[in-house]
Amino acid sequence: MKLPSESQLLRIFIGEADKFEGKPLYEAIVNLARQKGMAGATVLKGVMGFGADSRMHSAKILRLSEDLPIVIEIVDKPERIKDFLPELDKMIKEGLVTLEKAEVIAYRYNPKNGK
Amino acid sequence: MKLPSESQLLRIFIGEADKFEGKPLYEAIVNLARQKGMAGATVLKGVMGFGADSRMHSAKILRLSEDLPIVIEIVDKPERIKDFLPELDKMIKEGLVTLEKAEVIAYRYNPKNGK
Amino acid sequence: MKLPSESQLLRIFIGEADKFEGKPLYEAIVNLARQKGMAGATVLKGVMGFGADSRMHSAKILRLSEDLPIVIEIVDKPERIKDFLPELDKMIKEGLVTLEKAEVIAYRYNPKNGK
Repeated sequence: MKLPSESQLLRIFIGEADKFEGKPLYEAIVNLARQKGMAGATVLKGVMGFGADSRMHSAKILRLSEDLPIVIEIVDKPERIKDFLPELDKMIKEGLVTLEKAEVIAYRYNPKNGK
Repeated sequence: MKLPSESQLLRIFIGEADKFEGKPLYEAIVNLARQKGMAGATVLKGVMGFGADSRMHSAKILRLSEDLPIVIEIVDKPERIKDFLPELDKMIKEGLVTLEKAEVIAYRYNPKNGK
Repeated sequence: MKLPSESQLLRIFIGEADKFEGKPLYEAIVNLARQKGMAGATVLKGVMGFGADSRMHSAKILRLSEDLPIVIEIVDKPERIKDFLPELDKMIKEGLVTLEKAEVIAYRYNPKNGK
């Protein structure tokens, strides 16, 4: 698979405790991305944050530490991102989804690490 | 609250040990963002990095592990970001602040999780 | 050093276990960035992800926990990023490198924290 220079960065801001069909939403989104053949996905976990409901979540406050912010990043070509969005949309009850332009400089796969 | 499609991503790169009025700077920035009614904020903690002073900070080097890099991300409409910047500016003695275009695809709040 | 308003954000997606000349690739990249006098670098470690080879890496699955995704972020002026890319290119056997526009609002160094 190749990625065109003119690609897009999809970023999904949700909570660690958000669920989809009983499993963590971020895992469900990454699994969907893999099933759909997206070029890759990276999940980052924040240490503090707040979202649309303005509740503060912080690793410092033990009681809330199980709902830390999660950011999922997916870089792919515009058509594939576009196809992915309607399915993603059905999974997200609460959160923020943004799209940015990203120029792909290199996208490389080492066959000896493959499946 | 709604976010327009044409929004902005504000990113603030500081150190975990930076302080503002005796408390961690990243907490002070997130609290200010909440007070000002920003759409959300996410704090990510890095494992290694260096900034303007070129000192290296790394989770591997125990002595320096208390000043790991912090990235704060805030997505909001351009006017609200613009209003936020002068107050943010007074708080940051050292660090990097960047602004990027971000298209908001979804910004959703589930009322049953509200305050 | 100053950064122009019209700067770029270079993002490098690799694996924590990737090596360069026997040491972790992300450390080698950050060290190179410092040697080349780049304005700064931040290393973020993900909790889950997959890349070009579509193998899933997750902090939840113990066996794979040593190859979590790494994102390195470098903000600098376009000329300096351009000079950095050929050397970076030689180091990356597998991964994704993207470039985005980023407007620099502030880039500040506190001399009393210097070397």
